[in-house]
Amino acid sequence: MHAPVELADVAADVLARIKSRAPRVHCITNSVAQAYTANILLAAGAIPSMTISPEEIAAFVASADALLVNLGTFDADRRAAIELALGAMGQGKRWVLDPVFIERSPARAQFARDLLGRGPAVVRLNEREFAALAGGDALGGIAASFARTHRTIVALTGKSDVVTDGERSATVHNGDALMGLVTAMGCAGSALVAAALAVEPDAWLATNAALLALDVAGETAAQSAPAPGRFASWIIDALYSLDRPTLRARARVS
Amino acid sequence: MHAPVELADVAADVLARIKSRAPRVHCITNSVAQAYTANILLAAGAIPSMTISPEEIAAFVASADALLVNLGTFDADRRAAIELALGAMGQGKRWVLDPVFIERSPARAQFARDLLGRGPAVVRLNEREFAALAGGDALGGIAASFARTHRTIVALTGKSDVVTDGERSATVHNGDALMGLVTAMGCAGSALVAAALAVEPDAWLATNAALLALDVAGETAAQSAPAPGRFASWIIDALYSLDRPTLRARARVS
Amino acid sequence: MHAPVELADVAADVLARIKSRAPRVHCITNSVAQAYTANILLAAGAIPSMTISPEEIAAFVASADALLVNLGTFDADRRAAIELALGAMGQGKRWVLDPVFIERSPARAQFARDLLGRGPAVVRLNEREFAALAGGDALGGIAASFARTHRTIVALTGKSDVVTDGERSATVHNGDALMGLVTAMGCAGSALVAAALAVEPDAWLATNAALLALDVAGETAAQSAPAPGRFASWIIDALYSLDRPTLRARARVS
Repeated sequence: MHAPVELADVAADVLARIKSRAPRVHCITNSVAQAYTANILLAAGAIPSMTISPEEIAAFVASADALLVNLGTFDADRRAAIELALGAMGQGKRWVLDPVFIERSPARAQFARDLLGRGPAVVRLNEREFAALAGGDALGGIAASFARTHRTIVALTGKSDVVTDGERSATVHNGDALMGLVTAMGCAGSALVAAALAVEPDAWLATNAALLALDVAGETAAQSAPAPGRFASWIIDALYSLDRPTLRARARVS
Repeated sequence: MHAPVELADVAADVLARIKSRAPRVHCITNSVAQAYTANILLAAGAIPSMTISPEEIAAFVASADALLVNLGTFDADRRAAIELALGAMGQGKRWVLDPVFIERSPARAQFARDLLGRGPAVVRLNEREFAALAGGDALGGIAASFARTHRTIVALTGKSDVVTDGERSATVHNGDALMGLVTAMGCAGSALVAAALAVEPDAWLATNAALLALDVAGETAAQSAPAPGRFASWIIDALYSLDRPTLRARARVS
Repeated sequence: MHAPVELADVAADVLARIKSRAPRVHCITNSVAQAYTANILLAAGAIPSMTISPEEIAAFVASADALLVNLGTFDADRRAAIELALGAMGQGKRWVLDPVFIERSPARAQFARDLLGRGPAVVRLNEREFAALAGGDALGGIAASFARTHRTIVALTGKSDVVTDGERSATVHNGDALMGLVTAMGCAGSALVAAALAVEPDAWLATNAALLALDVAGETAAQSAPAPGRFASWIIDALYSLDRPTLRARARVS
């Protein structure tokens, strides 16, 4: 297990590495989330790209450092793009699966289950999505066994965020309710996890680092911007200027 | 007819019901407007969804409480999605038609006229769009007869907003010119009308409530944010925190 | 050559004409950039439209005053839309080519080279994109000969912006590094160039005016909003209220 200060330091290290290395993160994501996701990545220091065109997605993914697969727009073009992107992933390159809203659509849930077999490093989702992915009656308690079975990291986000690889588990208690009132916040969080994967070999640490950073940014933003419109901008700024002392002072991880 | 204070109270009631019931609003809307529309709905307390994928749109619409059909992106995928969505609407579920920019495209105008025959509860549009829909020489004055003929509510928005079901008419004089300088403001307003339809059986009252709420939010936002960039965020925040006293104090309805 | 004050006055004149004439700018642009581009155009006083539907794009372009072709989303629909749009351009109507990220995709680069033969009035791009367009080893120094050969304006943006038509060259030293941390800022700049083309016959002056205006807006915004989230809104507001004295005081052009 990791003490809060330790994970705060990991988060600070990961943010510093993203800023200095400027990893390229290719995002296959829904049209609602594209701009916000790009701005979160840019604020953190990463370089987003978002094409899904069949002629070029392999080239983009081949020169990217990590990949996000978000199912929020579930059309034939994106499904084909996902197939091409996964085929273009080289050795050691990792990807994040974000199965948005699969509890609302059996077709999307089935597609997410198929993708789970393709080896995502991390699956980030909320409790309803996890229940749909894991088979209907799953709760946070079985996230660890699910992670073990599928050899992935489960990042179960909500009022608090649980990150488990089946052996190690951490719960991040930071964040603010306003994060749920800004569209694409979860999607952007998944993209930040992908950026962290590009600079931190330990996927469990990378996932914790990204979620802790975004949650602490959310807390600090909420102090200055107490409503969702301004908050959407302030959390970007809080992430942009997030430093080690703030992470250490605020991290609440168990 | 309704006095301003009465409609202000209706708007406050409708907003309170949206916050407590969190209605699901499925939006078939243009790619420019998706994120802003989602954020307006979230700020009001509704749950947006936006998929147009043929495999799943029926499932999304079936579990939604209201539907928005916005023609701002007029492609084959969205036309097919609209057909599937309307087919999945159950008894008592209602939808809003927003025929964006139909005065610029004969094909889009014809499609909007066809949709009018499918029974939208509300058509929200500006004067140019109304002229294109009603046949070229229509003005605000004939909105009432148009509404009667097509058994719908016409919400004609602009410097002031006219809402008529053919029998009852109200004109909302609130709002701010900055609302016209933020892309997707009208689209988001139509989505808010859909959210109101999900919680208020009287479609005419629901439409007035949504437009009055957004217009009053615009007025209060303009006081703090006198330019369109910041205004776009502040109106979301003003809607998020809009209360009954503010609505009562500011409503100017005739 | 033009002195800074002279170009500052041209920029002020062009902004005033955009505000008074409200030119229609049709934008074929990527889905990430659509909303931000629309908001920049609206703040400047132009009227954006963004459809790529084959049934109607010709009608939109025919009634538009300028066209933007941005390759940031490079799919079959947009390629078809570009063909239809260029076919619908009347005499004297001009367009801007923004070959986003062509250094990442050979297919996109080839498409951009083909478009170069279709006579864009202006090509706006960064150094990496210019190298990919011009053949791999191109640098800023050869922009002038490239512009002459292809009878276009090259607007090479970065830390400073070089605008050349092969005979006249200017370098705009304004701007702020935060502009690079907001997604779609370059795309929006290209759209503003298109708006300027709609009101200024001299394409070289129009391009300088648009870039200078956006760069000066960026500088003034950065003073109030020192991080990218808020900056994204403030630069819109700075552009909205940009006046001649500010342009004259701040313009640094050589």
